[in-house]
Amino acid sequence: MIAVLKQGTTPSQMEQLVAWLKAMNLDVHISEGQHVTVLGLIGDTSRVDMDLLKSLDMVESVKRVSEPFKQANRKFHPNDTIIHVGDVRIGGGYFAMIAGPCSVESEDQIIEVAQAVKASGAQILRGGAFKPRTSPYAFQGMKGAGIDLLLKAKKATGLPIVTEIMNISTLDLFADVDIIQVGARNMQNFDLLKELGRTKTPILLKRGLANTLQELLMSAEYIMSEGNENVILCERGIRTFETYTRNTLDISAVTALHNLSHLPVVVDPSHATGKSSMVMPMALAATAAGADGIMIEVHNNPSCALCDGPQSLTPHQYDEVCHRIRKIREAIV
Amino acid sequence: MIAVLKQGTTPSQMEQLVAWLKAMNLDVHISEGQHVTVLGLIGDTSRVDMDLLKSLDMVESVKRVSEPFKQANRKFHPNDTIIHVGDVRIGGGYFAMIAGPCSVESEDQIIEVAQAVKASGAQILRGGAFKPRTSPYAFQGMKGAGIDLLLKAKKATGLPIVTEIMNISTLDLFADVDIIQVGARNMQNFDLLKELGRTKTPILLKRGLANTLQELLMSAEYIMSEGNENVILCERGIRTFETYTRNTLDISAVTALHNLSHLPVVVDPSHATGKSSMVMPMALAATAAGADGIMIEVHNNPSCALCDGPQSLTPHQYDEVCHRIRKIREAIV
Amino acid sequence: MIAVLKQGTTPSQMEQLVAWLKAMNLDVHISEGQHVTVLGLIGDTSRVDMDLLKSLDMVESVKRVSEPFKQANRKFHPNDTIIHVGDVRIGGGYFAMIAGPCSVESEDQIIEVAQAVKASGAQILRGGAFKPRTSPYAFQGMKGAGIDLLLKAKKATGLPIVTEIMNISTLDLFADVDIIQVGARNMQNFDLLKELGRTKTPILLKRGLANTLQELLMSAEYIMSEGNENVILCERGIRTFETYTRNTLDISAVTALHNLSHLPVVVDPSHATGKSSMVMPMALAATAAGADGIMIEVHNNPSCALCDGPQSLTPHQYDEVCHRIRKIREAIV
Amino acid sequence: MIAVLKQGTTPSQMEQLVAWLKAMNLDVHISEGQHVTVLGLIGDTSRVDMDLLKSLDMVESVKRVSEPFKQANRKFHPNDTIIHVGDVRIGGGYFAMIAGPCSVESEDQIIEVAQAVKASGAQILRGGAFKPRTSPYAFQGMKGAGIDLLLKAKKATGLPIVTEIMNISTLDLFADVDIIQVGARNMQNFDLLKELGRTKTPILLKRGLANTLQELLMSAEYIMSEGNENVILCERGIRTFETYTRNTLDISAVTALHNLSHLPVVVDPSHATGKSSMVMPMALAATAAGADGIMIEVHNNPSCALCDGPQSLTPHQYDEVCHRIRKIREAIV
Repeated sequence: MIAVLKQGTTPSQMEQLVAWLKAMNLDVHISEGQHVTVLGLIGDTSRVDMDLLKSLDMVESVKRVSEPFKQANRKFHPNDTIIHVGDVRIGGGYFAMIAGPCSVESEDQIIEVAQAVKASGAQILRGGAFKPRTSPYAFQGMKGAGIDLLLKAKKATGLPIVTEIMNISTLDLFADVDIIQVGARNMQNFDLLKELGRTKTPILLKRGLANTLQELLMSAEYIMSEGNENVILCERGIRTFETYTRNTLDISAVTALHNLSHLPVVVDPSHATGKSSMVMPMALAATAAGADGIMIEVHNNPSCALCDGPQSLTPHQYDEVCHRIRKIREAIV
Repeated sequence: MIAVLKQGTTPSQMEQLVAWLKAMNLDVHISEGQHVTVLGLIGDTSRVDMDLLKSLDMVESVKRVSEPFKQANRKFHPNDTIIHVGDVRIGGGYFAMIAGPCSVESEDQIIEVAQAVKASGAQILRGGAFKPRTSPYAFQGMKGAGIDLLLKAKKATGLPIVTEIMNISTLDLFADVDIIQVGARNMQNFDLLKELGRTKTPILLKRGLANTLQELLMSAEYIMSEGNENVILCERGIRTFETYTRNTLDISAVTALHNLSHLPVVVDPSHATGKSSMVMPMALAATAAGADGIMIEVHNNPSCALCDGPQSLTPHQYDEVCHRIRKIREAIV
Repeated sequence: MIAVLKQGTTPSQMEQLVAWLKAMNLDVHISEGQHVTVLGLIGDTSRVDMDLLKSLDMVESVKRVSEPFKQANRKFHPNDTIIHVGDVRIGGGYFAMIAGPCSVESEDQIIEVAQAVKASGAQILRGGAFKPRTSPYAFQGMKGAGIDLLLKAKKATGLPIVTEIMNISTLDLFADVDIIQVGARNMQNFDLLKELGRTKTPILLKRGLANTLQELLMSAEYIMSEGNENVILCERGIRTFETYTRNTLDISAVTALHNLSHLPVVVDPSHATGKSSMVMPMALAATAAGADGIMIEVHNNPSCALCDGPQSLTPHQYDEVCHRIRKIREAIV
Repeated sequence: MIAVLKQGTTPSQMEQLVAWLKAMNLDVHISEGQHVTVLGLIGDTSRVDMDLLKSLDMVESVKRVSEPFKQANRKFHPNDTIIHVGDVRIGGGYFAMIAGPCSVESEDQIIEVAQAVKASGAQILRGGAFKPRTSPYAFQGMKGAGIDLLLKAKKATGLPIVTEIMNISTLDLFADVDIIQVGARNMQNFDLLKELGRTKTPILLKRGLANTLQELLMSAEYIMSEGNENVILCERGIRTFETYTRNTLDISAVTALHNLSHLPVVVDPSHATGKSSMVMPMALAATAAGADGIMIEVHNNPSCALCDGPQSLTPHQYDEVCHRIRKIREAIV
């Protein structure tokens, strides 16, 4: 960690600061320039409160040179983490296809979709039971009953399931869920993260719409620091000024997260783009970039012309995407 | 609500869509152009699922022409809402000064700060007991014990208190809190909002770092739709590409929110800028823009040169800010 | 185009507005709702000044339902445009590899790099002669002499060349340049665009760091409306809050631009990421997304350990990227 | 400047790097930690190419601790710069009211507006002759004829004039213009900046829509490094995700720029918000924040209900704004 001191800092102020830093078991190297003095802090700085340091009158700026996350950090865990979900593995060369409807709506619906996506090659079933919606007047999901239907679909097809939790108080309902999803809006719901850190269930942690990669990894650190190391990171689009797509899918996050962390990275092109016509090209792009899995929304409502989901593919379209993803995987391995 | 249909939509598809819309008690006006057909949906569109409509194959784009929020909407409640907190009023011409330390640290600290800010003119005491921190290794607040100390300071000074809730399960601890704050990271923690909507306590709802004003008002709507109409909106900076300030304080949000809604708007310049030297000019600017209150961090640690908070003012500096805010208030009224 | 009128608009105001719109040869359809009145404007609205319309007191909001660009619009030109550059074609299924150093530095350097990238499969040579730099104290390029060296490299290898123009007054120097590049910072230098529209040289138009796709297409329209239809669009990263990468490469722009326009789309992963280790995965991702070409920075300075460019690949690394891009191309075609 | 070296950098690599840095007359302080080695570069680092340094294989990151701008830097010029424009002064406690129509349209229009705004207290007349427009089909301004009309209005009222230049080749037309404006889209048109640096005319430099404050100051440095020290900075809104306002006015930029630089800072609330109803509160807020001037669009078209400009005030509204700005100025001085 580097601290730059303001011009005019007195020797006694600096001494006081250096003493305080040394009391935290840090070595302090001092470089005095003409206009600035720079302190290099050497040692375990992950517990130094950067905001506090920045706040000192004599400090002009502070910069971390080692990342503030430890358990999620590739530097300390060079090998890729492989997450086991039933027989499925994610990360370290194992690639997972995750698919299913936006919301669970009925037993027929979820089982039909599960069978269809399994036939195309999906290994994990997704489906929303608790739905975070911007408007209080919009459909909020089937909740507990939705999870029951997902479990029926799991039984019918053998596919492990992933579904989103919004609230610690419903954790009991997720006892048989294979992967618990933390949505983008809850990425910094720290109490929820800590509670999930006390389970052993794999967590699919979605990046917040305006969160940096470092913040995403700090949220993973919240889960891991409580004992649960089964974290899957998920890029699902960030908020920018562009309005043609719902969000801007940051595919470079795949490579960046792989550089910074040993955790697997899954990409969700459905929510990012909000347009079904863009799902396939973005799924192929993310695969080519080295993603460890792709999560896609698939619906089935052949009889209802009005009911296809915003960004969802039909089973037929999904089959085509799976076929092409496999070709890309062969090309890059 | 306006729906633009794609070229190539067949008459029978359009008929089916129009029938579906009419079944929701909407009138549908059809404008056919050379390249596009536009449907104007007339009636109560606040319950129409815009995402679903957008998702239909035949629909090119959808635009709301009336806002999706109702209870927070100035169109339906032209008069300013005035929130009563003890003897203090906020909104409708009443202006509130809120001040206190970032975190509650000890009984002496919080009472001393409370007395100091009261002497300068503050009417409400703020202080963090539950602290959302990006890092699991950073200080997370005194929690329940912090609320107890705030209540002691309230007793000692008569100032009503505002403090942040992070988790529904701690709601009982807030029984005697005068204003419950929802932090920026929880602005779309919808379960928390709904639960707070079932109380009668005034809620200080902070804008998320990357949330639009409409999303802020939809989150207010979550609280109001459950029965609690005592919502105070708070602008505290948004995330942009600029790195000199921690966030970019969007002072135009004050005017925009006043145009859109009848709810009072408070501004927090301390968190937005992250620099104590910028707190005063931004507090004055927000006051001049017509804010209904200003919330500022104030610390007192005369004996500890290292302990001043990042963006906090000293009591002496706060006194000067209060003096100048009063002069601005006189100038604009 | 849709115009939403404010509540309280009088019939005579509306009549005046409708008369004004009809005078522009537009049909006007009126939909009156309870809270709003909506005008649908039918006809050629590309010349209607949306800002002027929005500015009227009685108008609440205006929305285009047809795009404001015409010559760049796929709706009016369904077939992909294919740009011819010597024997090279770009677009409509033709894929172009563009490579070369950030800056032209010497005859030996540019010819060596040109030979190396040609051997790997590059079809077009890039190199900076005029360099836009944030700081006036940074190297600004070899200027005219740089173009002369590029032409020597063209002669030596047969590769057509692309290089950036910053200023109309230097246009004469570009007489033998095969593709003239407009940099991100000049994307809305409208006088430059118009002047280039009066040439017949293909233009590589880079997206501005904070420009929407529609603005990019409007800038293409500036060139095309003057008579030069040879425009190649280039995505090179946009400015977001993320700081790990220099910019955020918006790979979804490839698909979006293909939906909106018939013009070819090239991607530059070197400038977007600013990290050489991210160039290959982003090049593969952009190829998988359907880009019509990839532009990559390649340097050669085997003798100087300090001189490799920020985001540049070595010829050896570039050879590997070319090999993999070809495999991705085979997988998606 | 601080350079952090990657793990695994060999002593001989480091020696080579240090020798290279010392050859640039820099002192190098080395701090070796367990996981990183940090180099502190002491001396005049404003000419060190940060991108080049970052690009070295052995370098993990680079951070400037002193700003890269010198002539615009308050550290080297502690006193406020005061710009003289005729009898008007801007900066160092002198506050300037600038007003006029978006575009110059006719002699009557510009003279009438000039007389009206002068009567309200404006000291400088603004008016667009060359208009940068996103669409090639929109009105591009009266160009040279517009400048002639501005000069007539100057003669009629005595008000100095400010108008925008888009292109070096038109510089001769600006011989009698008192302040030349560089628009947001040209903030990094470096050739234009350098050319204007060779004049003595005051330059009003608008911040680009997605440019950082440091980039704005680097663009000021382009002008100043060529010899013209008469630069006025202008905040006019930045591009964010918010869509209610056209742009987000960054009022904190006023304070930030005053901290970083000695140059005066003017605020343009008209273009930032794009809504006439928001101009007054934002003008008052910017004044309260300490801006050195406010630039506002004012139109006069009493006879034409359809012709009021998007974000323009009437002379009557402008008079009220001036009155209130004076009250705010009295309150803060």
